[in-house]
Amino acid sequence: MDLHILDHRLRVTSISKSGLEQYTHPLIKLIFLRNRTRCKFFSLTETPENYTVVLDEEGFKELQPSEHLQVEGSTWLPLNVVSNGNASSSSQAVGVTKIAKSVIAPLAEQHVSVFMLSTYQTDFILVREKELVVVVETLVEEFNIFREAGGESVPVHSQDACNGLQQNSREVPHATVHPVLIPENQFCVMSLDPDTLPAIATTLIDVLFYSNSPKEDASVDQDMECIKFFSFSLIDGYISLVMDTEAQRQFPTDLLFTSSSGELWRMVRIGGQPLGFDECGIVAQISQPLADSNVSAYYISTFSFDHALFIREKPLSLNGVPAL
Amino acid sequence: MDLHILDHRLRVTSISKSGLEQYTHPLIKLIFLRNRTRCKFFSLTETPENYTVVLDEEGFKELQPSEHLQVEGSTWLPLNVVSNGNASSSSQAVGVTKIAKSVIAPLAEQHVSVFMLSTYQTDFILVREKELVVVVETLVEEFNIFREAGGESVPVHSQDACNGLQQNSREVPHATVHPVLIPENQFCVMSLDPDTLPAIATTLIDVLFYSNSPKEDASVDQDMECIKFFSFSLIDGYISLVMDTEAQRQFPTDLLFTSSSGELWRMVRIGGQPLGFDECGIVAQISQPLADSNVSAYYISTFSFDHALFIREKPLSLNGVPAL
Repeated sequence: MDLHILDHRLRVTSISKSGLEQYTHPLIKLIFLRNRTRCKFFSLTETPENYTVVLDEEGFKELQPSEHLQVEGSTWLPLNVVSNGNASSSSQAVGVTKIAKSVIAPLAEQHVSVFMLSTYQTDFILVREKELVVVVETLVEEFNIFREAGGESVPVHSQDACNGLQQNSREVPHATVHPVLIPENQFCVMSLDPDTLPAIATTLIDVLFYSNSPKEDASVDQDMECIKFFSFSLIDGYISLVMDTEAQRQFPTDLLFTSSSGELWRMVRIGGQPLGFDECGIVAQISQPLADSNVSAYYISTFSFDHALFIREKPLSLNGVPAL
Repeated sequence: MDLHILDHRLRVTSISKSGLEQYTHPLIKLIFLRNRTRCKFFSLTETPENYTVVLDEEGFKELQPSEHLQVEGSTWLPLNVVSNGNASSSSQAVGVTKIAKSVIAPLAEQHVSVFMLSTYQTDFILVREKELVVVVETLVEEFNIFREAGGESVPVHSQDACNGLQQNSREVPHATVHPVLIPENQFCVMSLDPDTLPAIATTLIDVLFYSNSPKEDASVDQDMECIKFFSFSLIDGYISLVMDTEAQRQFPTDLLFTSSSGELWRMVRIGGQPLGFDECGIVAQISQPLADSNVSAYYISTFSFDHALFIREKPLSLNGVPAL
């Protein structure tokens, strides 16, 4: 299989709930006005805690510093596994499951933190730029590694990535078993032709920017066992949306599409306290048993917590997670 | 003819150019998300100086005070002239011309300041609530006056409006002849089915909120003799747009409509220095000769200047204004 180091230098940021209003202007520009920005990698995920915004340096320039914006200190690079026809894959599962054993587990063993961003189209594994040498050395046995730059894919060999960079010498942390939360609401993972994005603009704006203000014509009757989770990404021209069935009902049914017959996903949120960015092995803990069972799963990291999405039908037991 | 005092209590505000970004959130709500607001009267006009926002108290609540927001101190009430079938009207002209002699001139004589807001559908004459008694007394000879309240139209007699209110005792100001500016660009006055507003949302957002930031794919080559003027209003469910032909080209041609075969209007901007809100007779000075010539005109007041729109074809000489 091939592993591509994509040509995006990313920042991982968080906007507080109360600060969203003042970031409406740049965020709408990044989501809807592609001819006004050079940003090519943009992801916005609302959780009950905050809004996680992952975006490239062109996009990051649009976000003015304020007390409402938290920025993780590192530059992150997205990795992407491409199954070329030659590789035989016995797995029919989609999402993070496919890369659990080949990428996630080896990186965890080398104490490399990853920030996962599953989309409708693919799964991005974000690693810190400064750890790239360890990443390449860890994965070069298993993958043909390419670095994308200016539209070209250049093969990377272990020594290429090493230019003056140090081996990872981070202390091995103790493995932590994090508490998990399994909300009642079910989610769909969808996509949209970018040309039809204007057609859902007002709905998307409503859901993203105004869902916390009461509607004049709706009673507030939210099930407290559901959690708010809405993710929009626009990456290299591809749109991905993850939303629960309640949000989905607000969108026109003819524009959003999903991979098969409207499958619904259950969520496991990982972390009782915000996880931070330094602990390694969290994704591995979740994805390994999924890979063993060949269960499809999406995995979306946010600023505070991680989120795995599973098909509901399949009973499953994770480390410390009751059967779903 | 009937004169209706509409059931809206309005504030006249101005947002600075540099402050627009922080008002994007409430303005998008007021423009696009009708089920999230009780605001029924909203008008936003961009000029080179600022953004004039006229809106009712429900809408005004959405605008947080800041150094970027100027608020005229008074509450204003919109008046609307309704030509009932009985009144014989020899005038075929539209806009402020129709009401120049019957409303504008008498109010000017009584030293009542008016703030004009012409739209595709009608012309609103805004007067200060505290001057309503003078307005009613001035116009009651000419009009059947009704006050709208809770969906009902209640006839108003001169004494009804007088409850404890004082006669206007303002000092007569000297008549001022203001310099005018006649920009090169031409304007259209258009409307839109509110149900199709979502279809132009991204274009409208782009024009309203991002037109001052450079486009990635456009060269900046603006004719300095053109002025920026873009007006959007959503009043009692009716949408009106005034934009120049350059802005118009950005919108889909099949959704916006205009009254006749794409007529274009020239603008006269009145005022070399900001006009303020206390001078009377400005609209009258402009509209009287128009009425004498029976020339259609729209008239849009903003926070700093007044703007009259005329059909280009008709040569016309105003007080101190060269023939158009």
